[in-house]
Amino acid sequence: MILKSYKRFYNYFLSKDKALTRKLVPIIGFVPANINLFKLAFSHRSGSQEDNQPTALRNNERLEYLGDAILGTIVAEYLFKKYPHAQEGFLTKMRSKIVKRTTLNDIGEKMELDLLLSELNHTRLSRSMLGNAVEALVGAIYLEKGYAATRRYVIKYILRRFLDIHSLEKYDDNYKSQLLEWCQKNGKSVEFKLLAKYKLHKRDRFKVAVLINGEKKAVADDFNKKSAEQLAAEKSLKKLGISSNNP
Amino acid sequence: MILKSYKRFYNYFLSKDKALTRKLVPIIGFVPANINLFKLAFSHRSGSQEDNQPTALRNNERLEYLGDAILGTIVAEYLFKKYPHAQEGFLTKMRSKIVKRTTLNDIGEKMELDLLLSELNHTRLSRSMLGNAVEALVGAIYLEKGYAATRRYVIKYILRRFLDIHSLEKYDDNYKSQLLEWCQKNGKSVEFKLLAKYKLHKRDRFKVAVLINGEKKAVADDFNKKSAEQLAAEKSLKKLGISSNNP
Repeated sequence: MILKSYKRFYNYFLSKDKALTRKLVPIIGFVPANINLFKLAFSHRSGSQEDNQPTALRNNERLEYLGDAILGTIVAEYLFKKYPHAQEGFLTKMRSKIVKRTTLNDIGEKMELDLLLSELNHTRLSRSMLGNAVEALVGAIYLEKGYAATRRYVIKYILRRFLDIHSLEKYDDNYKSQLLEWCQKNGKSVEFKLLAKYKLHKRDRFKVAVLINGEKKAVADDFNKKSAEQLAAEKSLKKLGISSNNP
Repeated sequence: MILKSYKRFYNYFLSKDKALTRKLVPIIGFVPANINLFKLAFSHRSGSQEDNQPTALRNNERLEYLGDAILGTIVAEYLFKKYPHAQEGFLTKMRSKIVKRTTLNDIGEKMELDLLLSELNHTRLSRSMLGNAVEALVGAIYLEKGYAATRRYVIKYILRRFLDIHSLEKYDDNYKSQLLEWCQKNGKSVEFKLLAKYKLHKRDRFKVAVLINGEKKAVADDFNKKSAEQLAAEKSLKKLGISSNNP
């Protein structure tokens, strides 16, 4: 306890990492005792610098694996208690809306993790690095503070601050059904047409077009037909200028 | 605290559920204070009896949802610490071998949850009810005892007691590649042939045969081609009497 307090004092006032420590404090809400853990949380595979460590310990992938599980459990419990009468199906769907890649990337952006990421990596940032860093950060906080404190952190600093649970409830990520509904309401015909099936990296890939009143509206491809259709439907909704019911 | 102790005393010595309580103790390692939570953990949707509750609170599906997340996290952390130098990919694979349906069903059987399940449900037991009950039980323990105690429980009463981690390391659940390897070694030709694609409950279903030296060895079907092939390969390995490297 005293050792940890000393380490926190050292990191904040004396360490060569004191600038980094001070940037972390508003994001995580406390002064970290083990600053290396948090440096690791922001180290992308491609950008890691120190070569005297085994590969697995030089980047944030292990922390991301741990944090992914812990974040999933905290969200699962939060929803379980927030919706005491909801059925399992609703809870599962809500959970996957919160922990899915695109939501976590958005959260990482709002937390301004890009600043820390670009400071600690010498590589071009991609959007998915943001969501991965959110998970790795949760993993690091868990290792330093345990489950109860991490749960308080996630609820206060992530869920309450950056998520609008009520609009997520209404959020419909089935773009295909949204498009079908809109077309029916507006008396238009709609067709999803498989344009091509080909191989990419030895895997099947599907190219799908959306035809509205027989006219090509959007094209998309993906590794399975369903998600290619979803992508094409999403593009079509955008082109039609339909503000979907999403936040 | 005193209230909980009293409830435990009551459940063990006085309650009408004292027989059930005493059967639970060797499985969970403590006397439950909230016996209803544990009765719920073993109540399958089809078999639930009490009708004065909303549907979602009458069966174990909500507890299963919660327990699934908690079990996943405990296993994730256990592996994270057990393999301090392993890469994320290895950890993820190991975790999914442990928390996958068939492993959990086996664990539920070894825990003899079938006895409790058949006592609390008036329905025929299926194997998947065993794995679901393991998850729901973990959810119930979490609600009664919190994260740290649940982690101790899972490690001591489930992982150490019923899993052989080292044989899981070597365990290869890719039956197709095992079969291909065996055939190549033994100079036999092997072919996976799609026999039929049809609709079941509005979903595509695939029927696949394994031909060895042109002769039909096994047939299997599933909702996607890959798992139909895996199933057919598994059956073929069994028929050929090849002891796979699995526990």
